[in-house]
Amino acid sequence: MSATIAPVEETLADYARVTGEAIEELLGQRPRSPYLHALLREYPSRGGKGMRPALLIATCRAFGGTTREALGAAAAIELLHNAFLIHDDLQDASLRRRGRPTLHALHGAPLAINAGDALAALALEPLRDTTRLGGRITRRVLDEVLAMIVQTTEGQALELGWRRDNVVDLEPADYLELVAKKTCCYTTVAPLRLGALIGARGTVAPAALSRFGFYLGAAFQIRDDHLSVAGADATHGKDPLGDIREGKRTLMLLHLLRAVTPARRGWLVGFLAAPENERGDADVARVHGWMTEHGSLRFARAYGECLGAAAATAFEDAFADVPESSHLAFIRALVPYMLERTG
Amino acid sequence: MSATIAPVEETLADYARVTGEAIEELLGQRPRSPYLHALLREYPSRGGKGMRPALLIATCRAFGGTTREALGAAAAIELLHNAFLIHDDLQDASLRRRGRPTLHALHGAPLAINAGDALAALALEPLRDTTRLGGRITRRVLDEVLAMIVQTTEGQALELGWRRDNVVDLEPADYLELVAKKTCCYTTVAPLRLGALIGARGTVAPAALSRFGFYLGAAFQIRDDHLSVAGADATHGKDPLGDIREGKRTLMLLHLLRAVTPARRGWLVGFLAAPENERGDADVARVHGWMTEHGSLRFARAYGECLGAAAATAFEDAFADVPESSHLAFIRALVPYMLERTG
Repeated sequence: MSATIAPVEETLADYARVTGEAIEELLGQRPRSPYLHALLREYPSRGGKGMRPALLIATCRAFGGTTREALGAAAAIELLHNAFLIHDDLQDASLRRRGRPTLHALHGAPLAINAGDALAALALEPLRDTTRLGGRITRRVLDEVLAMIVQTTEGQALELGWRRDNVVDLEPADYLELVAKKTCCYTTVAPLRLGALIGARGTVAPAALSRFGFYLGAAFQIRDDHLSVAGADATHGKDPLGDIREGKRTLMLLHLLRAVTPARRGWLVGFLAAPENERGDADVARVHGWMTEHGSLRFARAYGECLGAAAATAFEDAFADVPESSHLAFIRALVPYMLERTG
Repeated sequence: MSATIAPVEETLADYARVTGEAIEELLGQRPRSPYLHALLREYPSRGGKGMRPALLIATCRAFGGTTREALGAAAAIELLHNAFLIHDDLQDASLRRRGRPTLHALHGAPLAINAGDALAALALEPLRDTTRLGGRITRRVLDEVLAMIVQTTEGQALELGWRRDNVVDLEPADYLELVAKKTCCYTTVAPLRLGALIGARGTVAPAALSRFGFYLGAAFQIRDDHLSVAGADATHGKDPLGDIREGKRTLMLLHLLRAVTPARRGWLVGFLAAPENERGDADVARVHGWMTEHGSLRFARAYGECLGAAAATAFEDAFADVPESSHLAFIRALVPYMLERTG
């Protein structure tokens, strides 16, 4: 394991623990509503990296705020992440999440949809904690969170729509547009903006933070896609090669569509047009083999490194006036971590 | 048409129009996001009775507030209603809504789930309008709305869970518990409480309003179930006899399960245990026939009338100190309207 990864993962684990306690307190005290209570706690109880709350809390602290001030928004983001995952897994017909069956696989689609809806509403409750920062900050926090949810659904719509209509003429720029909405917004941009908003009491202009968040989040997503396909899925807890089977528009797939011979491209477009349950293991393995043969995995890795370099520069710009601290060092270390992490 | 219905429907139409304009302004100005923008507008553009915003605005006005002050919360409730319907239709595998195909029938389940998620988040944006009433009221409005969403999902969980596990030993009291959460909360209780909160600036104790809302909402739901099964579906815009086919735990079904002979009950439990697509037209018609034969429709009608009488008493209590006005008269007239409406 690289020297970057271990300390970042220790800090992630610390923040994941405090956020997890806040979430457990919120969900644990809910009435034991039949067909709902256990479902709400299922994904949060399986853990997760806790990237989003960690980035939010660290940013708040780097800007002079406290963990306690950031905790409500951190819990909200993590709960929303879990709510998105429930609906994502259903939309993608995924069978496994964090090493166990997905919620809809356990309880059926109707109850899983409902649990996602409930979790998304409950996620907003901890935002009341920010009311002690005053009405103006509270309103801005709520605005950020609502805009973030809507942007995420815009990204999700693009991804699902491209798959449904088998859109294949896509450039890396299209992929970045997708990822900016689907991933960056709630994974990095909103945590950074919310952390700064709370920590600096609304005195920081958010544009440079958004730029840093975009590069950091895109690097995160490319690594995610890469790990899924490159075979590190044992630690990933998802379907092995699930992205390929689902026809997910990853950077590797977009690269492959442009790199292969016309004959292979024709076959690949047909593979993507077929219903998912007709995409057999041999076909999925063939696409995986082509991704290695045509350099798609290498391309994605290089593209991720380029985004990482852009993130490093954007970090210096976004945090130029912020005094050095362990929190700032953690955020800086997230850039190489995004590219090197193995799970 | 009874003398009660026409004036209520005129007022409903008026409030539906102003709410519809507010919603159209909100959704119309959104970016034309692919695979999302058109989906968000689909259900709102099909109209609807506008019961919820009308009750909210009328209550606000009865307590001395203005339409404008109530409009943000009214638009929020109506948008949430539309978001619930999108997911409801998918959970129930319904094919028609307001006389046209359901959203998932038009666009597929993944994009429909996503549109529901987006609409539920966008629904909270108009609540910012209440900020001009001050931070304390704004917070209470948000608390009411979030609690309302969560209660609705608790009710939805019960309904879906009972169906999934084919729970048949249910009493009218179980039905009322279901309806209190699934329907009353967001259809009548929250509109009443929010209207009073905004109109009287938080000076009214909400308990009596909640009681009135419960009886009114339960009467509304029983009429809804009754209309669906009693054959008035042409104006209802849903699947004819869809509730029976879906195995929905209506008051009529609960009555029938207790009224039939053991042999018929055995057949009925088997009918409910079968996958929905194996419940043929002849079987659905047989259940419908039994509901008439065993007095289940008559029972539900009488039960609704009893709830209507309780609502009329609870109304007098909840609005005892409120001066007479056209708004108050409209709310009072909703009680008989709930029992007599034909669509």
